[in-house]
Amino acid sequence: MSGRRRIVLVQPFRLPEDSEFLTWNVRGEKQELLMNYENLGLGKYLEDVDWDFHPGPLAPYGDWPVENRKEFALVAAARLAIVEELAKSGDYDGIMLLGGGEPGALESREIGREHGVPVTSCATAQFHVAAMVGSKFSVIDLAESHAMYYRNLVRQAGMEQRFASMRLIPYPLGRPGYDDQRNSLPVQKERALAGEKTEAVEAAVDAAESAILEDGAEVITFGCSGTFWLQPFVRAGLKERGWDIPVLEGYSSAFVQLKLLMELGLSASALQFPPDRPDRSRSRIL
Amino acid sequence: MSGRRRIVLVQPFRLPEDSEFLTWNVRGEKQELLMNYENLGLGKYLEDVDWDFHPGPLAPYGDWPVENRKEFALVAAARLAIVEELAKSGDYDGIMLLGGGEPGALESREIGREHGVPVTSCATAQFHVAAMVGSKFSVIDLAESHAMYYRNLVRQAGMEQRFASMRLIPYPLGRPGYDDQRNSLPVQKERALAGEKTEAVEAAVDAAESAILEDGAEVITFGCSGTFWLQPFVRAGLKERGWDIPVLEGYSSAFVQLKLLMELGLSASALQFPPDRPDRSRSRIL
Amino acid sequence: MSGRRRIVLVQPFRLPEDSEFLTWNVRGEKQELLMNYENLGLGKYLEDVDWDFHPGPLAPYGDWPVENRKEFALVAAARLAIVEELAKSGDYDGIMLLGGGEPGALESREIGREHGVPVTSCATAQFHVAAMVGSKFSVIDLAESHAMYYRNLVRQAGMEQRFASMRLIPYPLGRPGYDDQRNSLPVQKERALAGEKTEAVEAAVDAAESAILEDGAEVITFGCSGTFWLQPFVRAGLKERGWDIPVLEGYSSAFVQLKLLMELGLSASALQFPPDRPDRSRSRIL
Amino acid sequence: MSGRRRIVLVQPFRLPEDSEFLTWNVRGEKQELLMNYENLGLGKYLEDVDWDFHPGPLAPYGDWPVENRKEFALVAAARLAIVEELAKSGDYDGIMLLGGGEPGALESREIGREHGVPVTSCATAQFHVAAMVGSKFSVIDLAESHAMYYRNLVRQAGMEQRFASMRLIPYPLGRPGYDDQRNSLPVQKERALAGEKTEAVEAAVDAAESAILEDGAEVITFGCSGTFWLQPFVRAGLKERGWDIPVLEGYSSAFVQLKLLMELGLSASALQFPPDRPDRSRSRIL
Amino acid sequence: MSGRRRIVLVQPFRLPEDSEFLTWNVRGEKQELLMNYENLGLGKYLEDVDWDFHPGPLAPYGDWPVENRKEFALVAAARLAIVEELAKSGDYDGIMLLGGGEPGALESREIGREHGVPVTSCATAQFHVAAMVGSKFSVIDLAESHAMYYRNLVRQAGMEQRFASMRLIPYPLGRPGYDDQRNSLPVQKERALAGEKTEAVEAAVDAAESAILEDGAEVITFGCSGTFWLQPFVRAGLKERGWDIPVLEGYSSAFVQLKLLMELGLSASALQFPPDRPDRSRSRIL
Amino acid sequence: MSGRRRIVLVQPFRLPEDSEFLTWNVRGEKQELLMNYENLGLGKYLEDVDWDFHPGPLAPYGDWPVENRKEFALVAAARLAIVEELAKSGDYDGIMLLGGGEPGALESREIGREHGVPVTSCATAQFHVAAMVGSKFSVIDLAESHAMYYRNLVRQAGMEQRFASMRLIPYPLGRPGYDDQRNSLPVQKERALAGEKTEAVEAAVDAAESAILEDGAEVITFGCSGTFWLQPFVRAGLKERGWDIPVLEGYSSAFVQLKLLMELGLSASALQFPPDRPDRSRSRIL
Repeated sequence: MSGRRRIVLVQPFRLPEDSEFLTWNVRGEKQELLMNYENLGLGKYLEDVDWDFHPGPLAPYGDWPVENRKEFALVAAARLAIVEELAKSGDYDGIMLLGGGEPGALESREIGREHGVPVTSCATAQFHVAAMVGSKFSVIDLAESHAMYYRNLVRQAGMEQRFASMRLIPYPLGRPGYDDQRNSLPVQKERALAGEKTEAVEAAVDAAESAILEDGAEVITFGCSGTFWLQPFVRAGLKERGWDIPVLEGYSSAFVQLKLLMELGLSASALQFPPDRPDRSRSRIL
Repeated sequence: MSGRRRIVLVQPFRLPEDSEFLTWNVRGEKQELLMNYENLGLGKYLEDVDWDFHPGPLAPYGDWPVENRKEFALVAAARLAIVEELAKSGDYDGIMLLGGGEPGALESREIGREHGVPVTSCATAQFHVAAMVGSKFSVIDLAESHAMYYRNLVRQAGMEQRFASMRLIPYPLGRPGYDDQRNSLPVQKERALAGEKTEAVEAAVDAAESAILEDGAEVITFGCSGTFWLQPFVRAGLKERGWDIPVLEGYSSAFVQLKLLMELGLSASALQFPPDRPDRSRSRIL
Repeated sequence: MSGRRRIVLVQPFRLPEDSEFLTWNVRGEKQELLMNYENLGLGKYLEDVDWDFHPGPLAPYGDWPVENRKEFALVAAARLAIVEELAKSGDYDGIMLLGGGEPGALESREIGREHGVPVTSCATAQFHVAAMVGSKFSVIDLAESHAMYYRNLVRQAGMEQRFASMRLIPYPLGRPGYDDQRNSLPVQKERALAGEKTEAVEAAVDAAESAILEDGAEVITFGCSGTFWLQPFVRAGLKERGWDIPVLEGYSSAFVQLKLLMELGLSASALQFPPDRPDRSRSRIL
Repeated sequence: MSGRRRIVLVQPFRLPEDSEFLTWNVRGEKQELLMNYENLGLGKYLEDVDWDFHPGPLAPYGDWPVENRKEFALVAAARLAIVEELAKSGDYDGIMLLGGGEPGALESREIGREHGVPVTSCATAQFHVAAMVGSKFSVIDLAESHAMYYRNLVRQAGMEQRFASMRLIPYPLGRPGYDDQRNSLPVQKERALAGEKTEAVEAAVDAAESAILEDGAEVITFGCSGTFWLQPFVRAGLKERGWDIPVLEGYSSAFVQLKLLMELGLSASALQFPPDRPDRSRSRIL
Repeated sequence: MSGRRRIVLVQPFRLPEDSEFLTWNVRGEKQELLMNYENLGLGKYLEDVDWDFHPGPLAPYGDWPVENRKEFALVAAARLAIVEELAKSGDYDGIMLLGGGEPGALESREIGREHGVPVTSCATAQFHVAAMVGSKFSVIDLAESHAMYYRNLVRQAGMEQRFASMRLIPYPLGRPGYDDQRNSLPVQKERALAGEKTEAVEAAVDAAESAILEDGAEVITFGCSGTFWLQPFVRAGLKERGWDIPVLEGYSSAFVQLKLLMELGLSASALQFPPDRPDRSRSRIL
Repeated sequence: MSGRRRIVLVQPFRLPEDSEFLTWNVRGEKQELLMNYENLGLGKYLEDVDWDFHPGPLAPYGDWPVENRKEFALVAAARLAIVEELAKSGDYDGIMLLGGGEPGALESREIGREHGVPVTSCATAQFHVAAMVGSKFSVIDLAESHAMYYRNLVRQAGMEQRFASMRLIPYPLGRPGYDDQRNSLPVQKERALAGEKTEAVEAAVDAAESAILEDGAEVITFGCSGTFWLQPFVRAGLKERGWDIPVLEGYSSAFVQLKLLMELGLSASALQFPPDRPDRSRSRIL
């Protein structure tokens, strides 16, 4: 359909189908592949665009999800070739990077700008939306290694002034050598979606409330995309405790930011992501 | 139509029809009433919504456009009754405040939050969009009194970290007791739209370029809505000089921000704009 | 008397005499009209000046005290005409705005500057005095809506670097539809002035102590003028607990700041509050 | 006289009477000893107090005026004994430290607080007054060594947010081994006071104008007390060029700040300058 | 030898030996492979350690030097495997990352911390040394794309408070599709080392002087390692113009920082670079 | 020996040998005079240099250790003559100032720069090392008066961005008029070195842990040199509780920083500590 914009969603990585750490669908329709499509109601953000789903590069470091800085760097590099090909192809008006820690986001925006294609991603998108609806936001995240990597994203995004805190819940992602998957977040998610009361939801609501009471948060966001499913639960849990405030997650935030940029015809400033040999050049950068 | 969102645009003020300082349409279809509808191509942002146009309150201080702090305060107060009525009416999914200096924006967001209706406005909207496409933005504005009022908006919006500078062009708005309307911006606008080369456009492009070279701006925005018509001219002028960068103006920015918020179902945090007697209350604010 | 300076104190608003929310004198000598004249010992600051008392505009939004942003904006606008008339009259060397949230303070300073008359107000004055006697100050305030409005004043005043926290005590002002006036602050005040031990004083001392121990406050100030009467009680309560530190309130702070400015012959910088058509104009504002 | 407050002014140092670098009165009435008493019209600030003048300690490092950090440290230490004696004596309600670079000011405030006596000084006082009448101030100063020392005072005073710049004029104070006293500031001062047009005044007005146009200054202040005499000249020079803005100097600023503190009965927070064994102690300092 | 520490220097990348963009030695002794060993006098920093030289990974994106964000990300990922192997091997007490833009530095420090091996790199090391010898530093760099990437390193390193500016000289590195290698920096370097006066040196000294005069730099540093050879020339050039100040470059800075860390037995905090499953975990990150 | 660098360590002050407050050696070999030589293992930092020990000036204010601002100022001034003589002598390549609160450090660096001799000191050195191994550091200190003085050092050093908090343990130094020496730190130290479990160590480990959990510290440092002996105990205590992170103290930090500067041939920037009459001078300081 002529007026409709075409976007592509790119996973940060995919795991081998036989990985013991695989806790999401890797086969089926794109709606089934897009994590939390149902429970986050993502369909409504995608109704008015044509969208494709790209599974992303095979995780280069192993068969478990990305968590520490090294893994993020490897995944970032691996995703760039895909982003570049998609941006170059002319098939898309916008690219949305899946994954909470947005590996390769800055580099992808550099590439996107070169081809006039906006690229959004889950951390930055949440920062921007949060800044629209509150003075300060907090981030709920899981493992410390992930969180310290993510903390850096706030700094890089120039959002220190709007940042209240990160709050961690003790549910690291699966990784070899650790036996604790049975308590892990995907299990809790299944139980919560089935209507059970779970410790993870309780911990996340507690974390959000502490962010409000102690850290000055006015908006709650999420770090690792493995925590995004918590959004409606935390929203409801906070409301029940008397806190009726915005709770964001990365997918919806990045979808709407992408549509905003496409509507304005903007990708990124050539002064933020300069081309290799720009027509004009500054002699001073502040 | 069921799925379409309904928004209303509210002018900051209207002048008596016989004011000598009236330099815009006050009669006709809404498209004619919305300043710069044609030359900024605003129609494309309004295609997918149902929109109404509210002329705003009669300027309470006189028959010239708002420029200094006192005038802004009077206009802000006068607009609030309108905003409240519109927000309460249930007729609208979103409210967009016209006017560059966004009089009453914070108060309107407080009101909007109470009724679950997002309210966007031109300064803040530009700050948010600019933050998405560059590290730092500059603002092109006109009179010093207006500019110092506007400078405060940046501070209030928590955007100091993203602010590069304001750059002034010497074209104050008309006001009684000053004979210089003949050089004023509306005249320059007419000439520029007719294809003439004008001093005002030249001054604005120079200002933008200085902001890039000396102040670290990566994105250009505009202050007073009386300068918004310059946006395509400055965009083109910069491009001609080798600077192919985002140049924003307030109307399109506020339209797309409003759509983003409506799509996410958000107005503002109840912790940023608390109700009169909230269910829960913090004992500490940071 | 020739050498004595003449000042005028302007209330932010007055309520109809039959308002059920009226908890202060509206008839009598100026000393009786000036809230807390006795218990804050304000007389000593006014001995060496000639002073008038202006009751302020009738509250335009209803018959209860100002608390949220909308009410502040309406009151601000309403007070400006009074301030302008007083500033223009030539009858006064200085204007002191009563009311803790200082509605219209920035606009009044713009007006004051135009007429060469300094205008002080309770929030800003406390910020300045607090900055003289400590590195960081905290603010004791009441309702959340008021506090979030007030929080903005700190930002606007360029005092983020000196701000430690706001601490709230749960004593909102009276407003229609809420039955809780019996616990409200004016009742507590009466009892406290009568020598009773009250929950409000206890809560305020606790709040101040928390600000010291947890937030880094070295000086205590007050937000809403409805809390100013607490100053000597908090001062004494802290001292009793071993904290012998400056506790300010807005009236005395604004009186002495006004005298300081009158003595120096200063109102405000014409670069902070520029006239409508200044002799000289900057091309860049940082 | 009972109601009048008693203050004492303390010079930072005195030079031997036979010093070739002595460019001010060291004999006569206190009015003659107080530098710039006449041309800055200091008498009017001292009318309503009883004041004494203390010549300060003999400069311990040599017979020329203090300029670099070492000299400041030596003078600071030497002045403390005097300040302590005066504070302890019970003879004074307030102490005003003369000298632009305010050697020993923080230590003197520590001593003052111990004895309940407020101590003001020229740099800090100007910062506070400047913050009252503008968003940002600049400092006009002379030698680089002095200026870099002074730059630190801004940082120490927690005034980074209000600081625009320092601007230097090339008139270092006299010191042994340099022959350039003939161009030095005292000579220029004499000529300027005699009604001549001088290079130093011109340089200072240029410096102030550059601070306005390039650095964002809204208020002008002075660094070294050797430059204070320039205040009325710079005020007038700026006005002539169309800039009618506050120009401060340290003496009047410190006088009025002292009166403000005495009127409020404040010296400094015991949490900023804690006693040796305080009644209560914090476990955390932020 | 028992007491001597063993370190390894790792290049960010190597180019194929037949690359037309190769402007440095790729064969010979380690002293010949280490860029600028002679003219920067690097030998003296390496005297008291045992050192190895690792050529780094083959540039994965092409046969020209790294310049934009994409290239940096690819190189960063490629170098990590090498760093990990070296850190794990137990053969080294410290690792020094060559290359000005320090690709993979944060990830390498994460890896280094895991194995108790400190890792230093050229940008961060210069920031730290610069902070020791001045309040603010500027960075001389070349291409805009490189510079905007590098600008981010300052932010990431938490050094905004010490950063004055970047100053660019118009000498981009070689890359395919551009014919301008003849003016490029390696050519200028050869001529400069041969004793000729060159435009590049002149441009760099001008840039450094502008940083001093306009941006507040007290120390000069360099960005791209392709500019490090300029260090002695800029040092001398500034001195000739009267500015006798510290001019750093990345190699010596990173060597001495590495020795400092080895001497203290420190790599990095486990709270900055947490292990995958730490013994203890924080619930809040600020 | 030709290649070895010569340094001198200068105590901040010495006490009369009969002082009741003397809790350290004042007779013996330099190794015995250097506080904590044994238990901090300082010997290993001094192996590769030739070092002398200077006892510092006799405390000018009394016979107890320096604690408040006044005492610091007096000691600072007294130490400068020694520093100047040592710097001038040509006998030393570097000077290390002993004492945690580094009295006279800035002035000594000014003197050092004049003679081309780097001067390091314990607070600043810890700040720099801490910044290398973590994003934020906390400081463990003792008396409030000392701590508020020390807090200022952080600000002066331009390290606000890296500062998490100070945490106090209730062990003030001895001073006349207070009987509590029996609980004082030197007693606790003796017991701790003898292998006893002590309250002071426990308090310090608690303080460090609170800094980690509540303040965001990633590195622990110490304030008063009277607390430096706690370093290995706090390091071990934290480790035992699961926090294996860098714990610094001032002596080792200042030794290694001094060696770093000597190796680079740097003292300080002449723009940070300008000479009395510099060859070139800036007209603007930012």
